[in-house]
Amino acid sequence: MSIRTIVWGENIHERTNQVVAEVYPDGMHSTIAEALNQDPAIKATTATLQEPEHGLSVERLAETDVLLWWGHKDHGGVSDEVVERVAKRVWEGMGLIVLHSGHFSKIFKRLMGTPCALKWREAGERERIWVINPRHPIAAGLPDHFELENEEMYGEQFSVPEPLETVFISWFEGGEVFRSGLTYRRGAGNIFYFRPGHETYPTYHNETVQQVLRNAVKWAHNPLGTYAAIHDAPNVPVEKALEPIVERGPRLHQAGEAGYR
Amino acid sequence: MSIRTIVWGENIHERTNQVVAEVYPDGMHSTIAEALNQDPAIKATTATLQEPEHGLSVERLAETDVLLWWGHKDHGGVSDEVVERVAKRVWEGMGLIVLHSGHFSKIFKRLMGTPCALKWREAGERERIWVINPRHPIAAGLPDHFELENEEMYGEQFSVPEPLETVFISWFEGGEVFRSGLTYRRGAGNIFYFRPGHETYPTYHNETVQQVLRNAVKWAHNPLGTYAAIHDAPNVPVEKALEPIVERGPRLHQAGEAGYR
Amino acid sequence: MSIRTIVWGENIHERTNQVVAEVYPDGMHSTIAEALNQDPAIKATTATLQEPEHGLSVERLAETDVLLWWGHKDHGGVSDEVVERVAKRVWEGMGLIVLHSGHFSKIFKRLMGTPCALKWREAGERERIWVINPRHPIAAGLPDHFELENEEMYGEQFSVPEPLETVFISWFEGGEVFRSGLTYRRGAGNIFYFRPGHETYPTYHNETVQQVLRNAVKWAHNPLGTYAAIHDAPNVPVEKALEPIVERGPRLHQAGEAGYR
Amino acid sequence: MSIRTIVWGENIHERTNQVVAEVYPDGMHSTIAEALNQDPAIKATTATLQEPEHGLSVERLAETDVLLWWGHKDHGGVSDEVVERVAKRVWEGMGLIVLHSGHFSKIFKRLMGTPCALKWREAGERERIWVINPRHPIAAGLPDHFELENEEMYGEQFSVPEPLETVFISWFEGGEVFRSGLTYRRGAGNIFYFRPGHETYPTYHNETVQQVLRNAVKWAHNPLGTYAAIHDAPNVPVEKALEPIVERGPRLHQAGEAGYR
Repeated sequence: MSIRTIVWGENIHERTNQVVAEVYPDGMHSTIAEALNQDPAIKATTATLQEPEHGLSVERLAETDVLLWWGHKDHGGVSDEVVERVAKRVWEGMGLIVLHSGHFSKIFKRLMGTPCALKWREAGERERIWVINPRHPIAAGLPDHFELENEEMYGEQFSVPEPLETVFISWFEGGEVFRSGLTYRRGAGNIFYFRPGHETYPTYHNETVQQVLRNAVKWAHNPLGTYAAIHDAPNVPVEKALEPIVERGPRLHQAGEAGYR
Repeated sequence: MSIRTIVWGENIHERTNQVVAEVYPDGMHSTIAEALNQDPAIKATTATLQEPEHGLSVERLAETDVLLWWGHKDHGGVSDEVVERVAKRVWEGMGLIVLHSGHFSKIFKRLMGTPCALKWREAGERERIWVINPRHPIAAGLPDHFELENEEMYGEQFSVPEPLETVFISWFEGGEVFRSGLTYRRGAGNIFYFRPGHETYPTYHNETVQQVLRNAVKWAHNPLGTYAAIHDAPNVPVEKALEPIVERGPRLHQAGEAGYR
Repeated sequence: MSIRTIVWGENIHERTNQVVAEVYPDGMHSTIAEALNQDPAIKATTATLQEPEHGLSVERLAETDVLLWWGHKDHGGVSDEVVERVAKRVWEGMGLIVLHSGHFSKIFKRLMGTPCALKWREAGERERIWVINPRHPIAAGLPDHFELENEEMYGEQFSVPEPLETVFISWFEGGEVFRSGLTYRRGAGNIFYFRPGHETYPTYHNETVQQVLRNAVKWAHNPLGTYAAIHDAPNVPVEKALEPIVERGPRLHQAGEAGYR
Repeated sequence: MSIRTIVWGENIHERTNQVVAEVYPDGMHSTIAEALNQDPAIKATTATLQEPEHGLSVERLAETDVLLWWGHKDHGGVSDEVVERVAKRVWEGMGLIVLHSGHFSKIFKRLMGTPCALKWREAGERERIWVINPRHPIAAGLPDHFELENEEMYGEQFSVPEPLETVFISWFEGGEVFRSGLTYRRGAGNIFYFRPGHETYPTYHNETVQQVLRNAVKWAHNPLGTYAAIHDAPNVPVEKALEPIVERGPRLHQAGEAGYR
């Protein structure tokens, strides 16, 4: 069965900015979904900010394996309820790939627990992305580095938690560096942050970038199914203890009672 | 200068439950603060849920190096504003030590980005805490294990992110295990989760537990001062680039403009 | 194509100790290989200490995707040359699964860079293995814990580097705990340490243990092919620099010269 | 008491290469030791390859808190016995700071368990070192970046294990990036790798570099004393089990017997 993937796009600049509209006439989300669908193992659809529930209903998310997230101009426009819904699905095992300016999205900050801030400059400068973890699944088929002739600069410090693994580090023409590919696991969900993708440049038309996205979807996919127990904090009654024990001392809770949250 | 430390206590069961009141007549927070103050390098005071702003005003937090957090019955009673305020101070470099049932506090879940759930059983069973990282600062002066004759059981899976380091693992009489000492860094702030401390048992009167708390305060303390820049996402104008570059390609932002959040 | 797997067995106690011979009449390696071969995605063969080059010739290793290692009585009998050969293949991307007493094997210590020591007791006590990372590929299909009624105890501190991820933690009847499933990456190679498997008990006949081993082989397998460049430390001549630079200052090496090792 | 520190220098190019001799007339080790001794908390002495036992006798190492290692031309000239001796002291808690070309030293490769290889170019190009972990003890007092006008380039992939924390990342004029500050813990010993320091440039005369080295010595210092138990793998007899157990099943070892190594 193919990996059920949603590419979520904010879909604002594509409709309001002439430059962006020319680079991505059908929206960035469509370009990305098309790139993913080149791999028969992936079945990608799209969702946007403007749709009801931003296109991320409970039902649809329940049948989604991997979600990609691109937003920039209106992070605040995403409803808190949907953010919480997505976070829960990630903990249950849905993969999440956060793209570029998505570093400041509510969902990424929610899952990282840090500011996720960085330095930036919009000058169309050269970015060279180094693979520092060769043979990592997300770097499959890549050379030891690749270049994007025009990109926005993101510079360190990138205030995120120490990652599980660093896959890419970027060199910028203007003198900065950035950890451009970082992996995390939160609950049963795999998370990948990938830096490139400023909307005024044709980054998501780049073949190597597309390859990274396809690799990332496969890496983020957890084929073991929804882990619903992640939400539970079960009381284990004394009489069901795995080793026989006798209750001792005073207690607050009655047997079988739920804990405080 | 001593480490300016606040012990935050929910301070409910000490006043409403006879058993807890007898074990901690002045409140758990007072017992803990007293234990910390045995070390001349630490200057501990207390704060409670019932005080205005829960005792955690902007001014007071600004002059705090390390905060300890114990809550259980009324996590929901902590104001979201104060939670966000504490998170910001942690990112700036304030240390945070989360105790026992504080695993479900708003501030811990906020900083971890995960459910922070676990199994539990209140049966007064034996807990044996193993030091798996000898000579870690938090384990200073400890034997290879120590025991608490009566404790609440917490069992895995503990749904937190993979820690920086695991310092303690607990063995429980009823057959469970738990990662009882975990370190994290979020922004410039050091975070330590320490498991023991159910309110109906005299855990915080235990000398070894008190030693762990003193060690943890010293470890969590970041003496390098407040890192206020953690909140910034500065634009670096082209003309101030460290290497001379020429702006190329189209752009969204005007020079010096703030980014979208 | 199936995952080309070698189960390496020391194969001493099976031939010299009556108890072990009865539990594993064809050798532990054969029992393990048989268990792996129940999965059509795996093609497991065996190798032993007694074979020429311990069954691990350059040619055979070059065609091996994953190696499992069980040794106990004669770690010193393994030739240093073969150890170095295996280490190189791991760095190139061959998966390695180290079993039980293999914690003291030359190859594990070589790749960890630490003593890899632990406490132990041979009393046939109960071991309960907790899955602390549900939905990790190595825990596929497992319940939240499983038990081995008779096992040797291994207790912390286990002097290995902080792992990439902790998958299992064991509870022992006699009061100890142990990190029983640890993942590492060294070069392009995935490494998994799995604790159970004392030779006097039927551990490798246990179905859940067999499931873990099959999961681990699939997890450790790096399908991206041999990364031979891991052994290189290439000089990048000035004239081939990715950005045009002019050589400045004094130097030690002539252009194109190899570095010192 | 001050931190007893040894700066180990290979001390070859300083005596055989005119350029290096002019930059470091008393040897690089002397320059570094002098820089460390500017901090009253540190008491640094030197040792060189040419001294008996390379200046690293058992007795001297036993009284050493932190060792810095610079070598390049003759890594092979360091005796294996001394390498093993240093590794043991690191596991016991001695800090180790590996400098620049020391990435290929026997002791670093011994402790990492990987090739520790990288790309390189000796062109005196500009290196800009970014602090990606502000308020980390090793970055105390540093600006968000600093520059070395002439340095040897080291480029990724740097084949070392995923670090505990990444503190610095370098940008190079010729287009490469490198993780220039990495922390590890092996046994009770803290290890820091710091990239800059090619012998033909005055890097160790740079004040910021000297500050990093002083910071690193303080960070690497483990004040908790020698952890000799790291070398043991003790048998815990049944009658001394922490929980009463009855021996069951067959066994290989007699009570109190040492395990196989």
